[in-house]
Amino acid sequence: MQPPFLLFLGTAPDIGWAKTASGLAEWRAGDCAGQYRMEGCPVDLGLPDMTFAEAAAKGVRTLVIGIANDGGYIAPEWVPHITAALAAGLDVAAGLHQRLADHPEISQAAQAHGRTLHDLRRPQQTFKTGTGKKRSGRRLLMVGTDCAVGKKYTALAIDRELQRRGVPSTFCPTGQTGIMITGRGIAIDSVVADFISGAAEWLSPDAAPGHWHVIEGQGALLHPAYAGVTLGLVHGSQPDALVICHEAGRREIQGYEGAYPCPSLTDALAVHVAAAKLTNPNARGIGISLNTSLLSEDAARAAIRDAEAELGLPACDPLRFGPAPIVDHLLDVFA
Amino acid sequence: MQPPFLLFLGTAPDIGWAKTASGLAEWRAGDCAGQYRMEGCPVDLGLPDMTFAEAAAKGVRTLVIGIANDGGYIAPEWVPHITAALAAGLDVAAGLHQRLADHPEISQAAQAHGRTLHDLRRPQQTFKTGTGKKRSGRRLLMVGTDCAVGKKYTALAIDRELQRRGVPSTFCPTGQTGIMITGRGIAIDSVVADFISGAAEWLSPDAAPGHWHVIEGQGALLHPAYAGVTLGLVHGSQPDALVICHEAGRREIQGYEGAYPCPSLTDALAVHVAAAKLTNPNARGIGISLNTSLLSEDAARAAIRDAEAELGLPACDPLRFGPAPIVDHLLDVFA
Repeated sequence: MQPPFLLFLGTAPDIGWAKTASGLAEWRAGDCAGQYRMEGCPVDLGLPDMTFAEAAAKGVRTLVIGIANDGGYIAPEWVPHITAALAAGLDVAAGLHQRLADHPEISQAAQAHGRTLHDLRRPQQTFKTGTGKKRSGRRLLMVGTDCAVGKKYTALAIDRELQRRGVPSTFCPTGQTGIMITGRGIAIDSVVADFISGAAEWLSPDAAPGHWHVIEGQGALLHPAYAGVTLGLVHGSQPDALVICHEAGRREIQGYEGAYPCPSLTDALAVHVAAAKLTNPNARGIGISLNTSLLSEDAARAAIRDAEAELGLPACDPLRFGPAPIVDHLLDVFA
Repeated sequence: MQPPFLLFLGTAPDIGWAKTASGLAEWRAGDCAGQYRMEGCPVDLGLPDMTFAEAAAKGVRTLVIGIANDGGYIAPEWVPHITAALAAGLDVAAGLHQRLADHPEISQAAQAHGRTLHDLRRPQQTFKTGTGKKRSGRRLLMVGTDCAVGKKYTALAIDRELQRRGVPSTFCPTGQTGIMITGRGIAIDSVVADFISGAAEWLSPDAAPGHWHVIEGQGALLHPAYAGVTLGLVHGSQPDALVICHEAGRREIQGYEGAYPCPSLTDALAVHVAAAKLTNPNARGIGISLNTSLLSEDAARAAIRDAEAELGLPACDPLRFGPAPIVDHLLDVFA
């Protein structure tokens, strides 16, 4: 998908729904020219609001659907906006389960206006089933107490810090936003179920002994909807080390309030490490990543201290204070 | 797919590879008119060997691909046989990941001869993501120490025994063979990964309080390739009770010899019950199903006694000695 981008926020009620857009705005800021919000959308990424005509006039090439809704469908109310963008001369990219190309109106509009549709969620390649065979190089996997707790940001921040220190590393995206940020990876939740671990094996192939594959996590093992995706990813990744990610203050699984409490850091890390040991008996927890964006700085630092005391591992908010404590410990342990 | 069937065994080296064919021969015996074996295939289901012309002359309607290979692909050496069957006037049905209809030669031959291709693995419907919401009625799920240990046979035998006793029950197939046997169900390993638990929820909807959904298991939580499928199925099924299935004497995960030992009954049941408790805190192990087909009758009875002593639950070989001990205990516990 060609930059510059206009980020489509639709009617997203909060930033959590717009996580694809906010991920691009954060990690590919130079390519994000503006945002497009439908009537009443309260989310603001701090980018200029643009109509499609204005965007086209300013050289924007692609409207990116920046919304991650449950089920990954094209909301009917978006369709007239998407077709208007195509008419204005923009390509459209999305990372939804439902493909733009499969939507009759959108597909017809793209054809009529000679524009390109990019569907980034559906993997193009076919995968083999998992082999369980040990691969060379090292792997660090993000896992979580829930979805949308900062696994992708943590992986990106750790990968950047490793490279800054001269340690060879590769960020491995496992979701649509990571794919949009880097241009590679697999939306692991879109693979046919039999091939989850095989796709995860493909994602971090054999590498040099000192190299780290830093793998974005997906879902959570204690999540009632997405744990299958997570388990296949854990088994196929064969992680040497795991970082447990959590949003400080979250008490319930998002979207499952009243029925599913958010697990403790201790329980969540333990269940992921236990699962990882099936394909890598040396798997171990290496650190805690807290998304403290809802807390004051003092409260954030207190939450980090509490997490360290609970697990006896270094904790940090990688975006707010940097991922150095985790990276220090990782490089110590695997020196 | 229209009976009578001719069962295609290809070059299956043993009965394990032909589990779709053997499942049909066992559970839909009246519809299976014959078997078709390629040169050198040692598997024999005890059905008459037939050429396609003989089968057509005897009124056979459908050639059923009876092989379950890893990855579920159409082996190139089968193709001339499949097209010959179409030319002889048979329809062809398969439960592979790779669809017959997507294979150019096969699809062309079907069109040329006016025959129908049935691809039963790829779900036709779309699913929602799991809700984790408790459903009415009761659910019994088969789980295993490995793949191909007898989960489907156990579920079918228990379902039949419940009905024989007048207890309302429904067998819920989760794989291609079960679908071929009953004409309904979902190949849960073929669902897009994000929707595994949602599909499992769909499979056993709300039911009357005394009704049992008897759900075929898939894969195993301690299997390096397929555990993601299993976990989504466990979470979406919300089982009240689980039966742990095992092939007596199996020491290693099939196809992963030398790297992955078969877990103990105790460990395998514990990990599945622990996972099930996320969506049904009252989930419990209810019995042990041993496939003792490799053992003498004395050795089989000894293996069953050992399993009962290990877990403190009733054990049986449901095909050899009947599922009564498990059904007795199930109905006692949930009286």
